[in-house]
Amino acid sequence: PSSNFEEIGKAFVMHYYNIFDTNRAGLQSLYQDLSMMTFEGEKIQGAQAITQKLTSLPFQTVKHEVITADSQPTASGGVMVFVCGNLKVDGSENPMKFSQVFALQPLPNGQGYFCYNDVFRLNYG
Amino acid sequence: PSSNFEEIGKAFVMHYYNIFDTNRAGLQSLYQDLSMMTFEGEKIQGAQAITQKLTSLPFQTVKHEVITADSQPTASGGVMVFVCGNLKVDGSENPMKFSQVFALQPLPNGQGYFCYNDVFRLNYG
Repeated sequence: PSSNFEEIGKAFVMHYYNIFDTNRAGLQSLYQDLSMMTFEGEKIQGAQAITQKLTSLPFQTVKHEVITADSQPTASGGVMVFVCGNLKVDGSENPMKFSQVFALQPLPNGQGYFCYNDVFRLNYG
Repeated sequence: PSSNFEEIGKAFVMHYYNIFDTNRAGLQSLYQDLSMMTFEGEKIQGAQAITQKLTSLPFQTVKHEVITADSQPTASGGVMVFVCGNLKVDGSENPMKFSQVFALQPLPNGQGYFCYNDVFRLNYG
């Protein structure tokens, strides 16, 4: 399932940040109970808890800009995609730099992928 | 094998950068034929080709400083570790910021882990 890993990784990332920037609560559909997120060092497990965390982040508007997205097939038949980008919140003109990695696993029904591993860090400069 | 994933991730990272900074050619032992690296967007496969790339990087001395290392268990019984840090080459006083993710898989003999996925990016600021 990971022969077209570059397309899968890039498509996931575009989809993910589009939802993040327009309807954060909708991110829940991209996670499952087994999903793990580490957000700035804080560990969170499961689609519901991860969505709760992401929707409670203290900004009203956010815009992610992907600068690089590097994908590789994983040992479990999924895709790892590593993103570096810029993040602007609440209309600020000064972007923050971030890095994020997702390990995607095929959905049990074979219809796409969900996010199994997710690690997010701001890159303070 | 990933119940102590935090320890495994941190120990690997310390070991990896210690070898990188003292004897780059020794990194070959941490990869296998199946290993993949994406270095600043360039895809490289296999322990030998990865080591060739790393040993040919155009600096004489290098020092990695790990700022954060976030670990999670993977869907394949391994450990993913995501690093943000600083990098100084050839005695420069101005560090470059980097991010790197490793997905580690247990070695076939059960004696430790090797690097299955590796993505490296400098974070230009």
